[in-house]
Amino acid sequence: MKMMNLNADLGESFGAYTIGNDARLLKAIKSANVACGFHAGDPLVMQQTVSMAIENGVSIGAHPGFPDLQGFGRRPMQMALNDVYAMVVYQIGALSAVAASQGGKVTHVKPHGALNNMACEDADLSSAICRAVKDVDRSLIFLAPALSELSLAAKRAGLNVAEEIFADRAYTDKGALVNRKIEGAVIHDAETCLNHVMEMVEKSALISIDGKVLKTDIHSICVHGDTPKACDTASYVLKGLESYGLKVCPLDQMDLS
Amino acid sequence: MKMMNLNADLGESFGAYTIGNDARLLKAIKSANVACGFHAGDPLVMQQTVSMAIENGVSIGAHPGFPDLQGFGRRPMQMALNDVYAMVVYQIGALSAVAASQGGKVTHVKPHGALNNMACEDADLSSAICRAVKDVDRSLIFLAPALSELSLAAKRAGLNVAEEIFADRAYTDKGALVNRKIEGAVIHDAETCLNHVMEMVEKSALISIDGKVLKTDIHSICVHGDTPKACDTASYVLKGLESYGLKVCPLDQMDLS
Amino acid sequence: MKMMNLNADLGESFGAYTIGNDARLLKAIKSANVACGFHAGDPLVMQQTVSMAIENGVSIGAHPGFPDLQGFGRRPMQMALNDVYAMVVYQIGALSAVAASQGGKVTHVKPHGALNNMACEDADLSSAICRAVKDVDRSLIFLAPALSELSLAAKRAGLNVAEEIFADRAYTDKGALVNRKIEGAVIHDAETCLNHVMEMVEKSALISIDGKVLKTDIHSICVHGDTPKACDTASYVLKGLESYGLKVCPLDQMDLS
Amino acid sequence: MKMMNLNADLGESFGAYTIGNDARLLKAIKSANVACGFHAGDPLVMQQTVSMAIENGVSIGAHPGFPDLQGFGRRPMQMALNDVYAMVVYQIGALSAVAASQGGKVTHVKPHGALNNMACEDADLSSAICRAVKDVDRSLIFLAPALSELSLAAKRAGLNVAEEIFADRAYTDKGALVNRKIEGAVIHDAETCLNHVMEMVEKSALISIDGKVLKTDIHSICVHGDTPKACDTASYVLKGLESYGLKVCPLDQMDLS
Repeated sequence: MKMMNLNADLGESFGAYTIGNDARLLKAIKSANVACGFHAGDPLVMQQTVSMAIENGVSIGAHPGFPDLQGFGRRPMQMALNDVYAMVVYQIGALSAVAASQGGKVTHVKPHGALNNMACEDADLSSAICRAVKDVDRSLIFLAPALSELSLAAKRAGLNVAEEIFADRAYTDKGALVNRKIEGAVIHDAETCLNHVMEMVEKSALISIDGKVLKTDIHSICVHGDTPKACDTASYVLKGLESYGLKVCPLDQMDLS
Repeated sequence: MKMMNLNADLGESFGAYTIGNDARLLKAIKSANVACGFHAGDPLVMQQTVSMAIENGVSIGAHPGFPDLQGFGRRPMQMALNDVYAMVVYQIGALSAVAASQGGKVTHVKPHGALNNMACEDADLSSAICRAVKDVDRSLIFLAPALSELSLAAKRAGLNVAEEIFADRAYTDKGALVNRKIEGAVIHDAETCLNHVMEMVEKSALISIDGKVLKTDIHSICVHGDTPKACDTASYVLKGLESYGLKVCPLDQMDLS
Repeated sequence: MKMMNLNADLGESFGAYTIGNDARLLKAIKSANVACGFHAGDPLVMQQTVSMAIENGVSIGAHPGFPDLQGFGRRPMQMALNDVYAMVVYQIGALSAVAASQGGKVTHVKPHGALNNMACEDADLSSAICRAVKDVDRSLIFLAPALSELSLAAKRAGLNVAEEIFADRAYTDKGALVNRKIEGAVIHDAETCLNHVMEMVEKSALISIDGKVLKTDIHSICVHGDTPKACDTASYVLKGLESYGLKVCPLDQMDLS
Repeated sequence: MKMMNLNADLGESFGAYTIGNDARLLKAIKSANVACGFHAGDPLVMQQTVSMAIENGVSIGAHPGFPDLQGFGRRPMQMALNDVYAMVVYQIGALSAVAASQGGKVTHVKPHGALNNMACEDADLSSAICRAVKDVDRSLIFLAPALSELSLAAKRAGLNVAEEIFADRAYTDKGALVNRKIEGAVIHDAETCLNHVMEMVEKSALISIDGKVLKTDIHSICVHGDTPKACDTASYVLKGLESYGLKVCPLDQMDLS
């Protein structure tokens, strides 16, 4: 039975500020990318998120981002590579201790926002990030967009790599995400999302907006939970995947070797 | 041969801002309390500090503080106990990963500044801190002022406790530090510091400014390194302790059970 | 015709994080206390808030708070008085420029959260805050809880003082707010809020939870807007005040001399 | 008698962290660009800096930068233009109130670090910054690198523009600063700095490292003060300019129309 993972970003609240529907989303996903206090999240939010993830059998990943709470980690910043390295190490460690304190464990890492986007097109930045992951714990799974520089760097570093596709985003012919400003870049309808995902999973390929087929392994599907509708889509995709006979499971239960 | 530890705060620089003489101070001490990015330090500073500590055979401790860079963690803040707990867990984890990335290991924890001072007189706050340490890794040594609530809480929690005295501070009859605003609170002369320390070590007691003797175990002596003179005092105390026949060593090589 | 002001805290969103129902609340109030980027708010949020306030004929006040976004400025911090002074000056200035850039003007100041609460019982802290306000612009109206140290300090400083009461909070016999943990401290029902307010306005006094009458001027009523229900209560109080024949207007249109 | 200004960045300390030799540097310069708490500086540091500037007859400028204390505002960040606008407004306002509280006045604005560098090559970013300055106070002098997009945008906005050259930096044939990584980019010798400056002032032109002459107005010379040697160079340039018969004065005493 083929295995597939479903992941989403969680734990993005901060102090008195709430974002997302974590309790609901945890019912729909199998792996959570938990914000680590730089672009979102604070120590208590991280603890509560990890605790809920454990209760729901959802595997825990560190979601390191730029030190930019105001920009939610979405604004590109030019940081020296040794600063990026140290910052990724730091964030993984912070979440790891929080997970340990709740009886859980961080089993994967996925960079957030602008850090992820920049790394997907920058081999040096990707290498710095992957070196950080490896130097903390080489058994950590690296969750990266399929066919990206980030995915390539993680493989070069010898990490276990899970390649992900996005349920609600269209791809260019080069395998990148279509810019959100372009018509059709974001898929809003749950059924279309599921069909988009299933076509890619069955062909084991990214399918571009113009129909181009780019072969790749696919281990995980990224969904969102920032709106109630997004949570519904996530649930819909989960059920759809299961009805197609896939076993949807946490990243740390998959065979990625 | 009796063992004794010498500890100091390190890694308090931040970005372009430098504080302290870490390279020099590392020659004089055996254990470093490394700032974890909340009251001082940043990920790269932490990495460099840990790296230098390893080179110098100095054991590494997490030095968690309040989230107050502007106040250097010295301003009392009223945080909920569950926020304190999560914040201490977070900071220990961050430094642990940084240490791991450099081939080292965090072996002790010592709260910083106002967090430490407040906890020394607040059993509940102390318990929250100690619970955090224990829930991350119960083998961590807890470094606390001798005869403080913090020390008591750490023992209650079943942690290995190292009790410290301050080389350059006078004590009240209750075993607290004399307020810095009072004449004689701070000892500026290296030789007086050493004599102060040796009297307490030999009697295994705090000696108050009025001569009162308060029996206690003493495992470590805290020195400072924020000025060149402070570094000199640290070196002087180190040599003095050795000349008195004490084996001065890192905390993780001591028998604290 | 007697004048009365209705004020509320606004502009507490930050980056991607939204708090409050500012657009709705602006319909119910006459003066807005706008967060200045330390405990909440960011420059763009401040700009948008000020802009909406101007459109709605709501007068603009600076709402300086502790530098503690995570704690939303609600956690007591021990800051040196000269730091408090400078911090209040800074925040008033920031909002003043934002207001100027949108064609508006800051006409009052009201400290936020823990800074306000602490000052209400601390004459020195109150004096530092009031000196800051005066040194920036002595024509600024100071909005302070009736019968508090803050109100007294503002009068001593020669500022125009507007004394406020809280629509949804019970008072102690000493004129302080009843601790939120105590039954009856917070009034949840809109009609009860209005009656509570009208009794105090008519008697020109705080009425304690035990019925004690503490005479005071009352220029403004503080309402909240963090929930839809709170907005409804604000609207209800506004209409109630008007139906009782009061002219409800912005602070800068009142005679406070 | 021809007038010339000498400017430098000041007030870059933060909390317990000290950078620069402000007291010394204030003896050598006539206008100070004061950090506003985003990339450096805090409210109290700003107050102390402004206070010293007033005592020394040095005119005060706001030095707005990116919200990046760790990177000292030197790391490029991609911010939306409306965020840049609001951030510049905010910082000018904060310093203006601090200046007012000390009996002084902000009379110029100069963007800091990466914000300045990026704007020098980006007309849209420059326009957003200049619009912010104009919307706060159209009488503010805008201090910008000669022949930059920033200078052009300020002129288009109708601001009074002071064009500056750098005493210790070589120029490319296009009038940009030679990259610091290239040999000869930075001039370390005080006498060479002065000659470099005087050649440009006399020819009223930037002189590139390859000898190309780019005509421009020159109103101000930027010096640095981060090292004792830099302070010496600043003093040397000041005396040199005066010995060449120039009247060296604060920006707000110059005729820039």
